[in-house]
Amino acid sequence: MSGGVEWALHCCTLLSRASQPVPAVKLAEYHDVSPSYLAKQLQLMSRAGLVRSTQGNAGGYVLTRDAAAITVLDVVEAIDGVLPAFRCTEVRQRGPLATPAEQCADPCAIAKVMDSADRAWRDSLRAVTIADLVADADRQILPGAVERARAWLAS
Amino acid sequence: MSGGVEWALHCCTLLSRASQPVPAVKLAEYHDVSPSYLAKQLQLMSRAGLVRSTQGNAGGYVLTRDAAAITVLDVVEAIDGVLPAFRCTEVRQRGPLATPAEQCADPCAIAKVMDSADRAWRDSLRAVTIADLVADADRQILPGAVERARAWLAS
Ligand code: FES
Ligand code: FES
Repeated sequence: MSGGVEWALHCCTLLSRASQPVPAVKLAEYHDVSPSYLAKQLQLMSRAGLVRSTQGNAGGYVLTRDAAAITVLDVVEAIDGVLPAFRCTEVRQRGPLATPAEQCADPCAIAKVMDSADRAWRDSLRAVTIADLVADADRQILPGAVERARAWLAS
Repeated sequence: MSGGVEWALHCCTLLSRASQPVPAVKLAEYHDVSPSYLAKQLQLMSRAGLVRSTQGNAGGYVLTRDAAAITVLDVVEAIDGVLPAFRCTEVRQRGPLATPAEQCADPCAIAKVMDSADRAWRDSLRAVTIADLVADADRQILPGAVERARAWLAS
C-alpha cells in the first residue's frame, strides 16, 4: 500500500473540518509534507471525484460531498486503485500436468480464497466514513484543537 | 503481495496430495517455474516451519503437518511476512498544529480502521486450510487428474 493513503485520509478529515476551501499549499504546510507530493494525492482524489478545487481569491480544495458519504475505501481506492493485491497468474495451467484451459472457466480454489479475503478487507474499509473518522478523532484530541486548526486554516 | 504466494500455495496443495517427499526440482518442473525462484519460496516456507526437506535417495519436500492444520494465512505470512500493508507514520504529530506525542498513546482513528481491515483480511485467510483448498480443487478437476499427478511425481 502506498504511503499516500495516510496523507490522503488525513487531508480528507481536515477538509471535512474546514469551514472554507483549503489551498493545497496550506494542506501541505499543515501536514508538513512537500507540496508536490501532496499535489499528487490531491490529483488522484480529484480524479476519483472526492475533492475538487475552487478557483479565485479564497480558492482551494473542498470535499465534493458530505464526509458521511465518503468511505475510507473510496479514498484508499482513489490512491491505490481497485486491483486486488493478489493476482492469479493461472499457475494451474502450466507444466506437464497443466489443467486444460477449458477446465479453468471457474477461478482456481486458491484465487477464490484470496479474492474473498480481499472482499473482507474492502468491506471493512467501506463500513467507515470520513465522518466516522472525524468523530472518533474528536474523542481523542485536546479541547480547542479543532478551533485552533480552523483558525490556522483561515489565517 | 508477492507473486510467490500463488506458487507457495500451489506447492502446498501438491505436497498434501503427494504420497512421498517431492524433490524441489520436480516441484519446479510440475509448475513450470525456475527451480531457483521456487527454491526461494520453499526456503521461506521451511523457515516458517510449514515444509521440511528429507534427505537421501527418496529425499524431497514434505509438509510438516497435516494439510488441515496449515492455513492459507500461514503460507501468506511465510512468504510475505506478518507486517500489515498499511503503516502509520504518525502524520498527526507533524506540522504547526501537531498533536503532542503524549496525546498519541492510542493509535490514530485512521490507523485503527486500517488495522481492523487488515485483521478482517487475515481472519478470512486463517479460516481456510490447505485441506480445504484441496477439497475445493478436487471438485473442479478432471477425473483421474490426481492419480496422474501422483504417478508423475513418483516417476
Ligand atoms: S491458478 Fe492462480 S491461484 Fe491457482
Ligand atoms: S497518524 Fe498515522 S494514520 Fe493518522
